[in-house]
Amino acid sequence: MEFNFRTDLAIETREAYKKAKNIDIPGVDVETDMKDDVKITRVKVLTDEGANEIGKPKGSYITLEIPKIEEDDPDENEKIYKVLACELRAIIGNNKNESVLVVGLGNSNVTPDALGPKVISDLEVTRHIIEFAPEYLSRPVRSVSAISPGVLGTTGIETSEIIKGVIDRVKPSLVIAIDALASRKLERISTTIQIADTGINPGSGVGNKRSPISCETLGVPVIAIGVPTVVDAATMANDTIELMLENIQKMGSQNGVNYDKISEMKQDEKYNMIKEVLTPYVGDLVVTPKEIDAIIGNVSEVVAHGINYALHSEDI
Amino acid sequence: MEFNFRTDLAIETREAYKKAKNIDIPGVDVETDMKDDVKITRVKVLTDEGANEIGKPKGSYITLEIPKIEEDDPDENEKIYKVLACELRAIIGNNKNESVLVVGLGNSNVTPDALGPKVISDLEVTRHIIEFAPEYLSRPVRSVSAISPGVLGTTGIETSEIIKGVIDRVKPSLVIAIDALASRKLERISTTIQIADTGINPGSGVGNKRSPISCETLGVPVIAIGVPTVVDAATMANDTIELMLENIQKMGSQNGVNYDKISEMKQDEKYNMIKEVLTPYVGDLVVTPKEIDAIIGNVSEVVAHGINYALHSEDI
Amino acid sequence: MEFNFRTDLAIETREAYKKAKNIDIPGVDVETDMKDDVKITRVKVLTDEGANEIGKPKGSYITLEIPKIEEDDPDENEKIYKVLACELRAIIGNNKNESVLVVGLGNSNVTPDALGPKVISDLEVTRHIIEFAPEYLSRPVRSVSAISPGVLGTTGIETSEIIKGVIDRVKPSLVIAIDALASRKLERISTTIQIADTGINPGSGVGNKRSPISCETLGVPVIAIGVPTVVDAATMANDTIELMLENIQKMGSQNGVNYDKISEMKQDEKYNMIKEVLTPYVGDLVVTPKEIDAIIGNVSEVVAHGINYALHSEDI
Amino acid sequence: MEFNFRTDLAIETREAYKKAKNIDIPGVDVETDMKDDVKITRVKVLTDEGANEIGKPKGSYITLEIPKIEEDDPDENEKIYKVLACELRAIIGNNKNESVLVVGLGNSNVTPDALGPKVISDLEVTRHIIEFAPEYLSRPVRSVSAISPGVLGTTGIETSEIIKGVIDRVKPSLVIAIDALASRKLERISTTIQIADTGINPGSGVGNKRSPISCETLGVPVIAIGVPTVVDAATMANDTIELMLENIQKMGSQNGVNYDKISEMKQDEKYNMIKEVLTPYVGDLVVTPKEIDAIIGNVSEVVAHGINYALHSEDI
Repeated sequence: MEFNFRTDLAIETREAYKKAKNIDIPGVDVETDMKDDVKITRVKVLTDEGANEIGKPKGSYITLEIPKIEEDDPDENEKIYKVLACELRAIIGNNKNESVLVVGLGNSNVTPDALGPKVISDLEVTRHIIEFAPEYLSRPVRSVSAISPGVLGTTGIETSEIIKGVIDRVKPSLVIAIDALASRKLERISTTIQIADTGINPGSGVGNKRSPISCETLGVPVIAIGVPTVVDAATMANDTIELMLENIQKMGSQNGVNYDKISEMKQDEKYNMIKEVLTPYVGDLVVTPKEIDAIIGNVSEVVAHGINYALHSEDI
Repeated sequence: MEFNFRTDLAIETREAYKKAKNIDIPGVDVETDMKDDVKITRVKVLTDEGANEIGKPKGSYITLEIPKIEEDDPDENEKIYKVLACELRAIIGNNKNESVLVVGLGNSNVTPDALGPKVISDLEVTRHIIEFAPEYLSRPVRSVSAISPGVLGTTGIETSEIIKGVIDRVKPSLVIAIDALASRKLERISTTIQIADTGINPGSGVGNKRSPISCETLGVPVIAIGVPTVVDAATMANDTIELMLENIQKMGSQNGVNYDKISEMKQDEKYNMIKEVLTPYVGDLVVTPKEIDAIIGNVSEVVAHGINYALHSEDI
Repeated sequence: MEFNFRTDLAIETREAYKKAKNIDIPGVDVETDMKDDVKITRVKVLTDEGANEIGKPKGSYITLEIPKIEEDDPDENEKIYKVLACELRAIIGNNKNESVLVVGLGNSNVTPDALGPKVISDLEVTRHIIEFAPEYLSRPVRSVSAISPGVLGTTGIETSEIIKGVIDRVKPSLVIAIDALASRKLERISTTIQIADTGINPGSGVGNKRSPISCETLGVPVIAIGVPTVVDAATMANDTIELMLENIQKMGSQNGVNYDKISEMKQDEKYNMIKEVLTPYVGDLVVTPKEIDAIIGNVSEVVAHGINYALHSEDI
Repeated sequence: MEFNFRTDLAIETREAYKKAKNIDIPGVDVETDMKDDVKITRVKVLTDEGANEIGKPKGSYITLEIPKIEEDDPDENEKIYKVLACELRAIIGNNKNESVLVVGLGNSNVTPDALGPKVISDLEVTRHIIEFAPEYLSRPVRSVSAISPGVLGTTGIETSEIIKGVIDRVKPSLVIAIDALASRKLERISTTIQIADTGINPGSGVGNKRSPISCETLGVPVIAIGVPTVVDAATMANDTIELMLENIQKMGSQNGVNYDKISEMKQDEKYNMIKEVLTPYVGDLVVTPKEIDAIIGNVSEVVAHGINYALHSEDI
């Protein structure tokens, strides 16, 4: 299955499948839309077969493609966060009695993994005002709380365990989890926002989660919002190998030589090469742009404003 | 009770009491010790009466006074963290089967309140290695995990609730809670470390905790480690008023005038003046040195190394 | 001169003078304006006498009073930064050939002093694009560069020396210097933006500058943009003393006692009391709100967007 | 020239040369040493020919290889920083009249590039004390100042220009420049410290410097201290291609097929593949471990203590 190298984006798995097999994934519905220069793709995984082929649980995966998110233009950003807010509102509704816990996944000390914690610091939390100082509220607001649980290497505790513990006390109606993602392709970095109503799967994101953060494990619905900020180094090494094989094949047909033996190189052998290139860091290396700080700063603001607008605005 | 203006240090309440009443607090035992230039004062609150007078629960309050902690000299710092480790070890013992959860209280984005989160980032956590990768351990180690729960204004959740939630999942034998404290006097800032086996009381620390973080509320023993980094602005205003009253009294006796009427100024009137000076921020203002970043950087390293040494070293 | 306790705001010195002497400062013109809920006060110091009385060099001091800056509402913020941009543009004009060096004063590691460096990180700098990659520019833009020179305690170098050195190389037409200020009153914290065409004076700001950052010392015009984030602890102690003296006076007249002796307390004696209260940190202590991180985060964004808009927008 | 893919380490270029040509580089002297578990390699580039082949200016390149630097053990760290201090002292001598300016290169907001600024924040600067408060010094100390000039993308100014400007004002006898480096191999990340008396060359480090930071350009001697924290993504892609070619060659000889045509793949074709893999970020992508924050935290402390010890200690 050469098309399933690591990506956290449903849209990428789908593309890879289509490229490899020349058909759409059965059991997966796709519709596209355009709003204020933002291309919206809604991928619905409807059947178990579709889930199996796309490598993700049944549910909705909405992708916003936003070429301009890098540029930090207040007007552009406003357009984008309002599109994000609309899509979010369509999923979560506007019942002010439903409380929300926003979880900022990732490591605030590693720039490409800091998206989640950065978003948390820009959120409008209200739960404590409702509870301890309701007199400061001019109108009913939805109860919003937020945590940045940290990462396994710093806490020694599975992130999902910390979230479960907090949910037991706070009892939210819904969890929104923010995470920096790994994409299949460099061009997706910071130009794509994915909203998934299926939560977050083990091993996804920049850090390694070991257990899912989902309705099944937490007992409340989980909306995941993710933005690619890295490509896995293993993915990049694999890409290089595949490209090399393609080129060798071309050289062969140009020169009338048969290089099929090489193209038949086994998955094992490829893996071994990748491992050799990545030693001594196998599996724990990421490829990231040098200017990742500017990207994270701008994207986190857009995502935070989008969530604030979706949860609190009266205008949508 | 003019001697009980806000301090998180038992040693200061005791001094204030003694100054005001000229006797030691009944039901409170005090012993002092000296180790490697560090003055150690062990205050034991033994009776309910003593607890009432000192304004803190029954238990042990150990204070380390360390004039040199500001200077960031690796040799000095080693001496201090080893004294801290010794005192900690004396309380918590060396049973490798007892697991510890370290909690870094405070707001990592506000320099004088960032002590707790900074300590967490320097800790040697082991729980995840014991659980997921025990083959990397060359000898049995104590299970240590750690969290920085954030602050109410950012999370919307009481800090104690987050800790309770995590304890329910992690089930530690002991909690060590680190907090930046408010002292009564500026000279205590960064020159004092307090270890208390009673946990942390509501309203203490730089941020406002509303509910206690203690054995009673969490169900496991709580050791609190605190270092003063601020003086409450209300305390400083009160100090100014008291000093003024003292000086007026002196002026009176020098000039043969009777200013007793002024000295009898009621607590209410003093409070009103303090409130007026602090408007519009009553209760939410701190006084802190401008170079607080250097102080926090150095102190957090000393505290983190002290905890690491107490929990993991074979040499004490 | 009881009215000249430390403030970096011309508007406050003027108020204090008026309160003390019941007249306007001679040689100082004041006009007020209102734009989008922002109160604008333009103080012009026209004569040497005026400069002497107000304790600031001759020049223009524009103050924006913005009650809502704390709330992080994108729409409110847009209004404010556009008013700021208008005032700036009125001073600096729109000549794209005039290059600008923006200087972010202060210590990025001490929250209330971090305004300058935070603004720098949100600026649209263009000098390097004009120089090294002009093909990426779709229209002529003004050359903007930016530095955060750090603070004396970290660099060992006077801030003004670093700026001079950079100016010698970059040769800007204009310097814009951003600084966190100390105000006279707590209510000004984060609710006031001051624009001054006179640069920055020794001893102003949260950190201590020793030499001026002004046209005279740098050889290019300097616009200073400042926002109060602290009150000096000495100012607060002095306020407490003054309030106490006022109240004692009232007590006297209520009770028919003559307390004039106390009111005549000499400036020396007051200073001594303040020094005693602030020991061992005389002169290096600030009073700041606990939630200063949120304030700095929001204000720095407003100031950065305002500068970007003033320097680059075609819409004003 | 397959051996000169991008590395900032002289030791790696030398290894690559030896591997490719099976001889030592002429005009380059190498000696190795061992001190406290630290392997020291001193590479001296003596001739222009040697400089040409090794791709670095004539001068000394000292490499410390330190397997344990990742582990944050205070005792290990002390050993390492003392070895570093010794090597530094051997180069710069102990003349207290020679002043030093330490420059922390890199972007403090991008974790793998933050080494320089982090080291600066732990330095003992003395220049301002000598100048403004000599009464606080108990013995003569060397004048040390420090700056973090930022990066081109944030300042719009070439880093070397800022440094030149500051040197013109501060007039140091020596510059020590700290930088995060790119190595050829992942295993060097955080396990190697390079000291070079030749300064820093264009295009080296994690960020892209365009002009050299050296005695020639600055007019004072420049000692560069660097630690690899990333591998260039282009280097990694190239490695993958080379490994692939090697494996194909092996397959050929195992199966008795002649794949020489493939091995003769031109440098151009390789570059094109690399470019395709890295699009749209050609040249601006780095590969870095996920736990880079812990690495940077620990290494910066070791380097800062090493410099402090070399510049100020009486014990070596």
